[in-house]
Amino acid sequence: MTLIERIGKALEPVMLLMGLISPLATLPQLYKLYFSHGQYALGLSLTTWSMYSFIALLWTIYGLYHKNPTIWVGNGLGFLMYLAMVAGIIDRVGFTF
Amino acid sequence: MTLIERIGKALEPVMLLMGLISPLATLPQLYKLYFSHGQYALGLSLTTWSMYSFIALLWTIYGLYHKNPTIWVGNGLGFLMYLAMVAGIIDRVGFTF
Repeated sequence: MTLIERIGKALEPVMLLMGLISPLATLPQLYKLYFSHGQYALGLSLTTWSMYSFIALLWTIYGLYHKNPTIWVGNGLGFLMYLAMVAGIIDRVGFTF
Repeated sequence: MTLIERIGKALEPVMLLMGLISPLATLPQLYKLYFSHGQYALGLSLTTWSMYSFIALLWTIYGLYHKNPTIWVGNGLGFLMYLAMVAGIIDRVGFTF
């Protein structure tokens, strides 16, 4: 069994969990923006975080349409996280690219 | 047909494209880090971008395992983008959380 096959097989039962890790991984970035490093907010791209939010929203709708929690749970949470980034950036520095 | 059904159905043929949008949406953030706003790099979370890279790598392997380009193309590109963020943050400010 190749390495790809072994990792792919091992991931199968934890896909819902995996879908939650990226949204949760956004927490340190939110912490920096809102609490510890707000004065560096201009270095964050409003475009990037807005697009992330928009795409996560589309995936959430797609997952709901297919009644597939593996898709909509993680993306729903991701949407909230990325939207909080967007709100924080606008609050700190207004509109930027 | 509900709104969710209409959007879900419309997204069906463009999922591969959708998987590419989030990685490409990272370009403005990379531009700010590398070219226009490098002095604000301390506001970027090394934890967040490292986790994004790691998760994208796992999804890439998962997609390759299932021979599903819709999964591995976007995540493979995402992995490269997020890794470039990690490299840029370390280059600008060294290790941070």
